[in-house]
Amino acid sequence: MKQIITISRQFGSGGRELGRRIADHLGIAYYDHEIVLELMKRTQMTEAYIQQVEESRAIPLLPITIGRTFTLPAGQMVEQSRSVFLGERDIILEMAERSDCVIVGRCADYILRQQNPFRIFVYADMDARITRCRLKGQDAQHITNKELQSQILSIDKRRARYYEFYTDQIWGDRNYYDLCLNTSHIDVKKAAKILAQFIQRD
Amino acid sequence: MKQIITISRQFGSGGRELGRRIADHLGIAYYDHEIVLELMKRTQMTEAYIQQVEESRAIPLLPITIGRTFTLPAGQMVEQSRSVFLGERDIILEMAERSDCVIVGRCADYILRQQNPFRIFVYADMDARITRCRLKGQDAQHITNKELQSQILSIDKRRARYYEFYTDQIWGDRNYYDLCLNTSHIDVKKAAKILAQFIQRD
Repeated sequence: MKQIITISRQFGSGGRELGRRIADHLGIAYYDHEIVLELMKRTQMTEAYIQQVEESRAIPLLPITIGRTFTLPAGQMVEQSRSVFLGERDIILEMAERSDCVIVGRCADYILRQQNPFRIFVYADMDARITRCRLKGQDAQHITNKELQSQILSIDKRRARYYEFYTDQIWGDRNYYDLCLNTSHIDVKKAAKILAQFIQRD
Repeated sequence: MKQIITISRQFGSGGRELGRRIADHLGIAYYDHEIVLELMKRTQMTEAYIQQVEESRAIPLLPITIGRTFTLPAGQMVEQSRSVFLGERDIILEMAERSDCVIVGRCADYILRQQNPFRIFVYADMDARITRCRLKGQDAQHITNKELQSQILSIDKRRARYYEFYTDQIWGDRNYYDLCLNTSHIDVKKAAKILAQFIQRD
């Protein structure tokens, strides 16, 4: 059986960096945005469209605006979300079949549950996440800490909704992970190196 | 500042073994039942009494039976719990002052929060915990899995209540820990060895 590591992460927690570094240490494939690129190749969907759908509510209670120019009824909105989810699901299953790998986000822990992935959840205190977002310069220069906090919470809420719509699990509930790591007070580089040893098969 | 590691754990998760092994790898002190023994030395309390109080509800809604022979009103019951908590708190503060150490349970993560301990929460699936309890022979030979599960859940409920009565935190909520480890599918020996490297200061 392949060695699969899945990373779920709060926005701004450094989960993506941790995942990439673990993949580097283990010398295995790393998939994150690569999943979106692959879905673009296979469909008519654009990058902006996929990301928009990934970040929207899976079950809107009322019709909401998609993108900037048009409004969709709830049923159509769910259908869009479902097309992206199913497309990404097939890609994730193929990637996990192909070789050992680290996969970030997109319900991969649930999609690959038959393959017994090592499931990591990465989180951090709000202060640490704000600091990390500012260091990474993620469009955070011109907004206050309060606004940034509100954006971070909003992204996490959408990630949780997306996850919970497509799985029967609770996003971030430790029972669904093998290891939950709080990056508030640790060095992600060191953590990745040591976690790679931990995960590596003897 | 001393290096302090605190271990909180679900019953049957192997948290105690993990803590002892981490202490061995780091060559530092390990405190668990030692805290009870020290409290006995300093007070008139017996081992059975301390353990009974540690495992009882901190805030009974109605008078309940302590031990087998007598019943106490709620106020007196809280007073007993408080005496044990405060006695153990003083001992934990002294132990952490004396040298680097691993401390298991007894709200040590909260009591030592000014010392920035590395806070670990250890948990596992119910099946793994039942298997571990049977392997350890913890009075589990003559009861069914259902009865054992009920005992495990009851002990965890008391641990959570005790913790939440004396802290303003939620027992097992990942936000209050640096690392949460699910021992269902891992080798505790290997985990201890690698976590010791992770925690060790450079």
